[in-house]
Amino acid sequence: MRRTTSDIRRANRLDVLRRIYAAGSASRQDIARRSELSFATIANVVNDLLGAGVIVEDHFVGSGSGRPRAVLTPNGVRGLLVGVDVAETYVHAELFDLALRRLHAGEHPIGPETRRPAEIAERIARAIDALLAEHGAARERVLGVGVSVPGQVAPQLGVSVFAPGWDWHDVPMLALLQERIGLPLYLDNPLMAGTVAELWSGAGREAGNLVCVTVGTGVGAGVVIGGSLYRGTTDAAGEWGHSVLVYGGRACRCGSRGCVEAYVGAPGIMETLRELDPGSELLCGGDQTACVQALADSPDAGPVITRTAGLLGAALAGLVNIINPETVVLSSWVARSLGPRLLPELRESVAAHALDRAMGAVHIVLSDIPGNAVSLGAATFALEGFLDAVISPGRRT
Amino acid sequence: MRRTTSDIRRANRLDVLRRIYAAGSASRQDIARRSELSFATIANVVNDLLGAGVIVEDHFVGSGSGRPRAVLTPNGVRGLLVGVDVAETYVHAELFDLALRRLHAGEHPIGPETRRPAEIAERIARAIDALLAEHGAARERVLGVGVSVPGQVAPQLGVSVFAPGWDWHDVPMLALLQERIGLPLYLDNPLMAGTVAELWSGAGREAGNLVCVTVGTGVGAGVVIGGSLYRGTTDAAGEWGHSVLVYGGRACRCGSRGCVEAYVGAPGIMETLRELDPGSELLCGGDQTACVQALADSPDAGPVITRTAGLLGAALAGLVNIINPETVVLSSWVARSLGPRLLPELRESVAAHALDRAMGAVHIVLSDIPGNAVSLGAATFALEGFLDAVISPGRRT
Repeated sequence: MRRTTSDIRRANRLDVLRRIYAAGSASRQDIARRSELSFATIANVVNDLLGAGVIVEDHFVGSGSGRPRAVLTPNGVRGLLVGVDVAETYVHAELFDLALRRLHAGEHPIGPETRRPAEIAERIARAIDALLAEHGAARERVLGVGVSVPGQVAPQLGVSVFAPGWDWHDVPMLALLQERIGLPLYLDNPLMAGTVAELWSGAGREAGNLVCVTVGTGVGAGVVIGGSLYRGTTDAAGEWGHSVLVYGGRACRCGSRGCVEAYVGAPGIMETLRELDPGSELLCGGDQTACVQALADSPDAGPVITRTAGLLGAALAGLVNIINPETVVLSSWVARSLGPRLLPELRESVAAHALDRAMGAVHIVLSDIPGNAVSLGAATFALEGFLDAVISPGRRT
Repeated sequence: MRRTTSDIRRANRLDVLRRIYAAGSASRQDIARRSELSFATIANVVNDLLGAGVIVEDHFVGSGSGRPRAVLTPNGVRGLLVGVDVAETYVHAELFDLALRRLHAGEHPIGPETRRPAEIAERIARAIDALLAEHGAARERVLGVGVSVPGQVAPQLGVSVFAPGWDWHDVPMLALLQERIGLPLYLDNPLMAGTVAELWSGAGREAGNLVCVTVGTGVGAGVVIGGSLYRGTTDAAGEWGHSVLVYGGRACRCGSRGCVEAYVGAPGIMETLRELDPGSELLCGGDQTACVQALADSPDAGPVITRTAGLLGAALAGLVNIINPETVVLSSWVARSLGPRLLPELRESVAAHALDRAMGAVHIVLSDIPGNAVSLGAATFALEGFLDAVISPGRRT
């Protein structure tokens, strides 16, 4: 529950800053028009942000009758942020300025033999070292590092609670990294990082209630309520991919049957293709990346697209009915490849399965974040953490 | 977004008062132990509540070393509240004291020919008149009236947006009632009223994140996030009964197929029974109330119970995975009748379909609110409205 004065100040600060980042630049008056905050509150928050050097008064514009208005922009030169997307097959590290502009990126493969927490921590540390060295950036200029690791994460504890691909249970990842990296660190998972990226830099820039649906090998949903990420009682919210869509249907890797993920994650789409046409060349010998790309490109993919859009739309309708969001954004690599072909039939299927009132309120869109949204989101967590440290370093009151 | 100082004061006030109501009585120190609020905030809120006469210092208890502690209780004699549950077949009105103790109840049937908004408003007004007259309560002592009407409601506008049983669209119900009743009035729907009843007086008394699942003729879910009712972008959240559980399955009255409601609402359970045993005597000639009661009582109901528990459990697992709540409470009349027989197999089914982390955090229980939870919830909305009016009648700051 967000109840203390410092909680509310923090929420207001993120709200104001998010609007400046979203628009690229904005006057105090622009912010007041778009938010529910009073002008006085906005002016106070802006003073804090200016004081911390996070934003600057870029120039002034005339305002008709009144005084010229200051145009506020993120202060890119204030320092650097690092975002790291760790998956079972790679470490992808990116360097950003404080305006969240991407400066440099590097990707390093991880072999299947590398899975011990200390080894992974070492790979992450080396990827960050390489990133800074290649860009010629001094370590002292880095204000924070956000790291996303796969699976379930308890961010407050800095613990990877469960990473099925590596069979990790309760790994104190933040402590392992801290030892090696020595910079302010923030740990989370790709679902939350991708959702925060949409909130600051993507389709959620104007939304209060947002659902960010990840469609990749796995499927999940990040939920934003009133402009804040919703994490659930034990940081386990958002496992929408394991809602039952076909009771008693396909076996899912989670141990249950008929889950959304078993139909619309990449392996599920391949199984649909196998059902429709067992000998299809589009299966690409079982290579899921190649198969999804082939489906995106081929004129013969119609039946798989239709079937997948129907299933995914029915599943999304359930989310729309329960959460009644302003925006549903589809992200991750399957959505990026197949999204343009899926979207028309997908919207029809959602409309056929959702109730009118919720359907009328929602926009269903594909993510337009270029490049890796997870590393951007991880860097955004580092930005949020830097703000907390620099503006209100005290305890809760 | 709850962002202004008055919003936070209101949330804190409800938090503190809810804890006093939930426990029946509590000292400031008891509240401090259970909430995240500072002692100073609690002391301020308690002073406001004492000043408004909503609570009283009932007696003092020793505290070992320190000063005696005041035990705070709701001030029942401060005034009266009315809660009205309007359904397509009845108006059920109840009188409560300010401690939400039920003083009197009356129920009045509505025939199928009565469906015009003005007629329904008149029936509601007469039910309230009768309630007050029968109890000998002076109208001036009533601090507020909460009215729940079926279907979708926009509470801020006082409008019944859509009531399918009466074919109502955008009926300004609050205005119609206001004319006739002349007391502070609050409009909502049974899903929200039932959920608020659980929050103040039921299984949600200690929960921050709660899902209240209604299983009756229709099926829905009220969602509480961080102690506050979540209504969605257009007051349409919670239509979980129309999530797809069996893709391409049974036709649902919403126009879609395979919805949760089509399997676990009363008509859905009867259809399951018909599938398993078309000539079953338990069908009671198609009378859904009699059929559900017969299933609750009969030793032959095993297969229907097992099948329904499996379906409902799979559907609930989706909610548990997405919301990661502390508590799921099952309410309404089907849950009341069949709940004790369903619960063991239901819990097994949820566990088989949900992910461990979310499953480990949740308690799945039957509502233990005696009598009509909707009229209690409607009266609770009136209590919340009275508090807003008496303590912070000003505008947002």
